Amino acid sequence: MELMTKSPLQIARGSYQPKMPAVLKGHVVLKEGAATQSVADQEEIKQLFPNTYGMPLITFEAGEAKAHPAVNVGVILSGGQAPGGHNVISGLYDGLKALNPENKLYGFLGGPSGLVDHKYIELTGKVIDEYRNTGGFDIIGSGRTKLEETEQYEKGAEICRQLGIKAIVIIGGDDSNTNACVLAEYYKQKNYGIQVIGCPKTIDGDLKNEMIETSFGFDTACKVYSELIGNIQRDANSAKKYWHFIRLMGRSASHIALECALQSQPNMCIISEEVEAKNMTLNDIVEQIVDVIVARANAGLNFGTVLIPEGLIEFIPAMKRLIAELNDLLAHNEDFNALETDDEKRQYVKGMLSPESSQVYRDLPKGIARQLTLDRDPHGNVQVSLIETEKLLIEMAAKRLAKLKAEGKYKGKFSPLSHFFGYEGRCAIPSNFDADYTYSLGYTAAILISEGKTGYMSSVRNLTAPADQWIAGGVPITMMMNMERRNGKMKPVIQKALVRLDGAPFKYFEKHRKSWADENFSYIYPGPIQYYGPAEVCDQPSKTLLLEQGK
Amino acid sequence: MELMTKSPLQIARGSYQPKMPAVLKGHVVLKEGAATQSVADQEEIKQLFPNTYGMPLITFEAGEAKAHPAVNVGVILSGGQAPGGHNVISGLYDGLKALNPENKLYGFLGGPSGLVDHKYIELTGKVIDEYRNTGGFDIIGSGRTKLEETEQYEKGAEICRQLGIKAIVIIGGDDSNTNACVLAEYYKQKNYGIQVIGCPKTIDGDLKNEMIETSFGFDTACKVYSELIGNIQRDANSAKKYWHFIRLMGRSASHIALECALQSQPNMCIISEEVEAKNMTLNDIVEQIVDVIVARANAGLNFGTVLIPEGLIEFIPAMKRLIAELNDLLAHNEDFNALETDDEKRQYVKGMLSPESSQVYRDLPKGIARQLTLDRDPHGNVQVSLIETEKLLIEMAAKRLAKLKAEGKYKGKFSPLSHFFGYEGRCAIPSNFDADYTYSLGYTAAILISEGKTGYMSSVRNLTAPADQWIAGGVPITMMMNMERRNGKMKPVIQKALVRLDGAPFKYFEKHRKSWADENFSYIYPGPIQYYGPAEVCDQPSKTLLLEQGK
Repeated sequence: MELMTKSPLQIARGSYQPKMPAVLKGHVVLKEGAATQSVADQEEIKQLFPNTYGMPLITFEAGEAKAHPAVNVGVILSGGQAPGGHNVISGLYDGLKALNPENKLYGFLGGPSGLVDHKYIELTGKVIDEYRNTGGFDIIGSGRTKLEETEQYEKGAEICRQLGIKAIVIIGGDDSNTNACVLAEYYKQKNYGIQVIGCPKTIDGDLKNEMIETSFGFDTACKVYSELIGNIQRDANSAKKYWHFIRLMGRSASHIALECALQSQPNMCIISEEVEAKNMTLNDIVEQIVDVIVARANAGLNFGTVLIPEGLIEFIPAMKRLIAELNDLLAHNEDFNALETDDEKRQYVKGMLSPESSQVYRDLPKGIARQLTLDRDPHGNVQVSLIETEKLLIEMAAKRLAKLKAEGKYKGKFSPLSHFFGYEGRCAIPSNFDADYTYSLGYTAAILISEGKTGYMSSVRNLTAPADQWIAGGVPITMMMNMERRNGKMKPVIQKALVRLDGAPFKYFEKHRKSWADENFSYIYPGPIQYYGPAEVCDQPSKTLLLEQGK
Repeated sequence: MELMTKSPLQIARGSYQPKMPAVLKGHVVLKEGAATQSVADQEEIKQLFPNTYGMPLITFEAGEAKAHPAVNVGVILSGGQAPGGHNVISGLYDGLKALNPENKLYGFLGGPSGLVDHKYIELTGKVIDEYRNTGGFDIIGSGRTKLEETEQYEKGAEICRQLGIKAIVIIGGDDSNTNACVLAEYYKQKNYGIQVIGCPKTIDGDLKNEMIETSFGFDTACKVYSELIGNIQRDANSAKKYWHFIRLMGRSASHIALECALQSQPNMCIISEEVEAKNMTLNDIVEQIVDVIVARANAGLNFGTVLIPEGLIEFIPAMKRLIAELNDLLAHNEDFNALETDDEKRQYVKGMLSPESSQVYRDLPKGIARQLTLDRDPHGNVQVSLIETEKLLIEMAAKRLAKLKAEGKYKGKFSPLSHFFGYEGRCAIPSNFDADYTYSLGYTAAILISEGKTGYMSSVRNLTAPADQWIAGGVPITMMMNMERRNGKMKPVIQKALVRLDGAPFKYFEKHRKSWADENFSYIYPGPIQYYGPAEVCDQPSKTLLLEQGK
């Protein structure tokens, strides 16, 4: 056997030509809509972004050939990985080269810090070709440095001048695009002649609005997780003896959990936004889970699946208050830090919390209480994302079931297993949908640049239609903004999209979840992402998107 | 959106027609080889199996049409799930129907207990068509009841007489096929006219020998795990800040870990069989891991991947002795059970162990020592498979790295993440290889039955050649047997295949592992299993098999 340098699928994907909107295949003219306004807090946002506020929506239409002077462009990958990042860059590259073969593309290394620290490479055709249709952000690496300081902006401008860069494309989530917008405003105000264009990236699916139908990577990541959930469900349904508690990455919002539920039809899926809206306690959630376990046990089914969104803990109002109290109480608390044993620390905490939070704290399993009290980040804050909520719920459900069993109200057997899926999906080879969508986003960004636009996010819409009918253009980033409190100060930020309880995806889930809980044969087994074969297998967008668009 | 009952891929796979050996497409004649003997302990095995010992190897060749009287057949799924079980059954069904459309197939429910408890369904074409090319064992369920008692054999014979069943096919691993052989011997000795045929199933890959080139399910499960490992490696290589410790299912043998290493080229992979052969301690393993972490940190690479086989702990000679001592010491030990606190228990144990084991015990992280001492199964044994070896190794490596850092010998940053993959792969949709292989195994079993054979395992060989060149036939199960101590008694069992350190797969791994540890770009990203598209992507057997067959 010869030593591999790539897998057969890696090699085969290299020659995939992403599908794209028909309009991007020819010459383009920009059609501008009416002036826009921000989603809320219009006056404040307008004041903060005098140069980039109120710009019109842009859509591309077929136009005449025209000359485009050569430009150099820089690109940055920001934040957590999402499948398709490499295709944004290859679409951007191809778009730039189609406009003018003299155009050049630079990639800043390791995220936004590459711009500030002047670390970059030129992205030539040879480099790009190595990364077409692949997962990962490894072409130039990513990072989490926030662009928030004037000094950073100036350092960025410096390297742009050195390299003759006229535009920067920032591929990132809501925070990174907020920063992109601030940077665009700054460069425009300073008249530096450096445009900034954003691209909507995040597997979490929480960067979306009327004009940005979905962030890229969400589709692929959810399909990977759903493959695994489906496989586990088939295992559960074959072995008939395990309850699988599966926590899913996705930060605050429950979009990933909901999409995976729509794809795999598990027995249960907790939606954080519903927990918050109904003011549920941790015990309420456990009760709900236990009810399903008992009902299934009564039907002879001692197995099942429960999906749990990563952000759950923060959405349980009582837990949220407890965590806030603990953060206040324990930050730089020398009395607490002077205590020696864990027991003393727990006793101290119990005494200092409000009566309600103290009760919540007492009800928690020891391991979790310990984690909340002792495992804290350098700022003294609880590290919520490290809490293994799936194990917490297992422990609490087991306790409750033991009680019911003692009372003769439960005769089943509870053998739980826990899983956490996250890193498995962030760098998967992008689905055809994400490969096409990201390539189009990058290509669109090239055109926005060539037209001198700044402060825009690349936008490709009508995504449940075939790709050639997709609508490409740009959305002013200020349009997505409102004012929110961050570290005690009001800041302009892109509004995060949580799961809407009045939205079609949740409504569909709500309508069917009872039958998914009760019935034996409602599991769906999505299987692995397919890149070849029938279109109904290979080219489907997410269920969330289909439902949101009434399909 | 309409309510799904199947995913698009489930629907599309329903019409896949598995590829099979050319010889199975026409009429077959049996070619018998010379008499066989067991792999060891020939005299004992011969005495224990007077009626089924020494039978010839069988291969199928093209023959003339002949009449086959109608038979009824029963099938059993035994033990843990493996992708392709449903295709063994559909191949068996199609094979039986091709021989005589009057043939009937019954499925015993929930594993071997279905035979004993007379729980079964008839597997009609309608049922079979629902399960073609799907993962899981849910068509009839599986179970772990061992067929070892005369009373069970008699109860089995009873239901066979009732249903007119002339043959039973047992789809299982080494233990289940051992039981199949005992059952075949018993029925033959009693002259009951009930044949028993085995099929080699297990994702663990430890049921193989000269005539059984691989067990089914190994290929698919390893490809699923390798997909995830590859995705995680791409993530590691993009974020450049995490060390991923990934434990892989596979019971005692390290075949799965090795195959996944061959497919994904991780920075490290521990092979239990090597650990045992080199008489390594847990500290030795940690040293090896730490050496790689330090070397990569020196090259600026504070990230990587380590694969860990599930069975590792049992192969570390010192741990094996410690576990054996603990099992002896703690089983029904009333002094120990009377102790109240965990600390008292740990002190007691330290005092009672041999000096060497006591030292090993002292060196263990507290959580693991606790698990070894306190979390015991109903027989008082340590539950080795529950030990989170990946977390154990992380904890020990972190400690060692902190020490090196204090000594100025390590300047890197160690951010570890742990994963365990197992249930994700056991019920995946079978790869084309497993779909084809299992279908052929089932079809072959039908022919062995029609020819009156018993005590044979269905065998399909030459598996790295195109499917039409595969060689089909039967292998006497006694041929795979030797005598081993089980629960204090010598028993005839199929010899388990561990990773051979002189075998081509390990040799290949050994040759390349240093460069995989050091270099940045040796990761392979296999991606998800593909069922459509180019043959080099869709129809490859495992690397283990390719290397074993000199390819």
